[in-house]
Amino acid sequence: MTDFRGRHVLITGGLGFIGSALAHALVEAGADITVVDSLAPECGGNYANVDDIEDALAIVEGDLRDTPRLTEIVDGSEFIFNLAGHTSHVDSMNAPQVDLQLNCAAQLSLLEACRRARVAPTIVFAGTRQIYGRPRYLPVDESHPIEPVDVNGIHKTAGEQYHLLYGARYDIPVAVLRLTNTYGPRMYVRDARQTFLGVWVRELVQGRPFEIWGDGTQRRDFTYIDDAVEALLLAVDPRVNGRALNLGDDRSVTLKELADLAVAANGGGAYSIVPFPEDRKRIDIGDYVADYTAIRELLGWRPSVALEDGLTRTLEYYRERGDRYW
Amino acid sequence: MTDFRGRHVLITGGLGFIGSALAHALVEAGADITVVDSLAPECGGNYANVDDIEDALAIVEGDLRDTPRLTEIVDGSEFIFNLAGHTSHVDSMNAPQVDLQLNCAAQLSLLEACRRARVAPTIVFAGTRQIYGRPRYLPVDESHPIEPVDVNGIHKTAGEQYHLLYGARYDIPVAVLRLTNTYGPRMYVRDARQTFLGVWVRELVQGRPFEIWGDGTQRRDFTYIDDAVEALLLAVDPRVNGRALNLGDDRSVTLKELADLAVAANGGGAYSIVPFPEDRKRIDIGDYVADYTAIRELLGWRPSVALEDGLTRTLEYYRERGDRYW
Repeated sequence: MTDFRGRHVLITGGLGFIGSALAHALVEAGADITVVDSLAPECGGNYANVDDIEDALAIVEGDLRDTPRLTEIVDGSEFIFNLAGHTSHVDSMNAPQVDLQLNCAAQLSLLEACRRARVAPTIVFAGTRQIYGRPRYLPVDESHPIEPVDVNGIHKTAGEQYHLLYGARYDIPVAVLRLTNTYGPRMYVRDARQTFLGVWVRELVQGRPFEIWGDGTQRRDFTYIDDAVEALLLAVDPRVNGRALNLGDDRSVTLKELADLAVAANGGGAYSIVPFPEDRKRIDIGDYVADYTAIRELLGWRPSVALEDGLTRTLEYYRERGDRYW
Repeated sequence: MTDFRGRHVLITGGLGFIGSALAHALVEAGADITVVDSLAPECGGNYANVDDIEDALAIVEGDLRDTPRLTEIVDGSEFIFNLAGHTSHVDSMNAPQVDLQLNCAAQLSLLEACRRARVAPTIVFAGTRQIYGRPRYLPVDESHPIEPVDVNGIHKTAGEQYHLLYGARYDIPVAVLRLTNTYGPRMYVRDARQTFLGVWVRELVQGRPFEIWGDGTQRRDFTYIDDAVEALLLAVDPRVNGRALNLGDDRSVTLKELADLAVAANGGGAYSIVPFPEDRKRIDIGDYVADYTAIRELLGWRPSVALEDGLTRTLEYYRERGDRYW
């Protein structure tokens, strides 16, 4: 892995779930870190995520479209972990023009700054499995057709394509990771905008029953935050330049199995299985399981935290600090 | 084919090359036609394209993002031929945010109006082979990977995905045609923004030598405008609902062969072969030939105008009326 000691790193979306976890790892590695975050209400940016490392970060509040000094910040960065973006499926269907600005226009702003930089920074972009849409086969590898089923997925597709295009066209080292369901401490738990699992965690910790939407048989794979962070750091590597790579896990579970694991990790709890809300039913994708052979073979990455352990650590975090997140 | 007599039809981009040709066909078919066109300087919208049928059209000048009464116009339309958009590869790389607004934001505006309509109109969207990027195999069928090589291609991909998504999500009948190089009377000839062939035609008619960029061995297929119009009209058909279909031709030619055909059709002329301009070289896609089996089998469409005839008719048009186009 790259030695980040004393290196200039920019994390966009750095006050959010994954960005702040990455910031912790990079502080520990001795990097010189700038964080840009819009603190948009539903994106998960939260100062609670960095209160223990705040002094070690240069934090710039601002949307990438109009961040003061973005060009200058980018110009001083050797590495950019680009985690900014909206991820709500339902919001994107209700307000597609807003999603367009928050995802596409913002990404173009950042990439335009990168291509104007004196020395091109290395970029790792957090993509998503969402761009595959409803899987045509399982497990889904990187050559699966791109068929997003909501506006957010279309814009995330464009975001990924921008990165690969700018990389190829302007000789910017770029790698894209297509994340699957990432979970862990600091995840967004206010509602189901980012993941249903956040709501489950909140309800469990607060002692209320939670809901599984659908029939509980849907299959998913999960990545614990520490494993996702490791993948992001490993992706600063010329061997994955210009590539888009899946993260995944060897094990997939149904939502019902996941619910049972979460209840067990919590030492108790209750849930019910209820039909999909109408606005979600039509953009639901059925089962999803990733094939992550490519990143394993190229970079040696594989997940190391079992679902039981990850859920336990997550629940523990919110039992202690949930009041900063609810 | 649908009987369009007395039917309410909206053509976006209706003052441009393909839109105005379609308008001529629909006037002849007795349709009740509204045209919306932004007349953006480099999009090809030109009143010369409709001067012989202007009285038969309701023309609204405006960008789809802020067309007065767009909702009302859409609400009164049974069929929408959506041909609006910017197509310049090079402009999109120089000003990606502009391309985003002109293509993505505009398409979302139209589709949002469609989903709010009391009765959903049937939409035919003019997509493009550009979204395939550099072909991985020839001929290119519809399941070829989507790998656009410029920002415009990324936004055209999003445009197509929006249409298929809105169709599926909101029960709007939608078909997408992925056009290849379309040519003929009323094509944009001012520069190479839409197609190099437009410039060739202008230079030939004005008696100047034209340039082939590259080495002349690049292979392309061409669709004469009348054949493209027929495909658009045929695509109003439940059998292609939710589909994206290639247009193409049984014959492909190298650029050098095309140049020789154009010179012959013009009864003389000269050209030179020059290296690609730097800004185009990196977004060039090499050979492209479409597989159009799907639309042939589903709708019985096939091209009927040979390249020699099409070029002859095109040159004739600009010899007579070029002064309105240069």
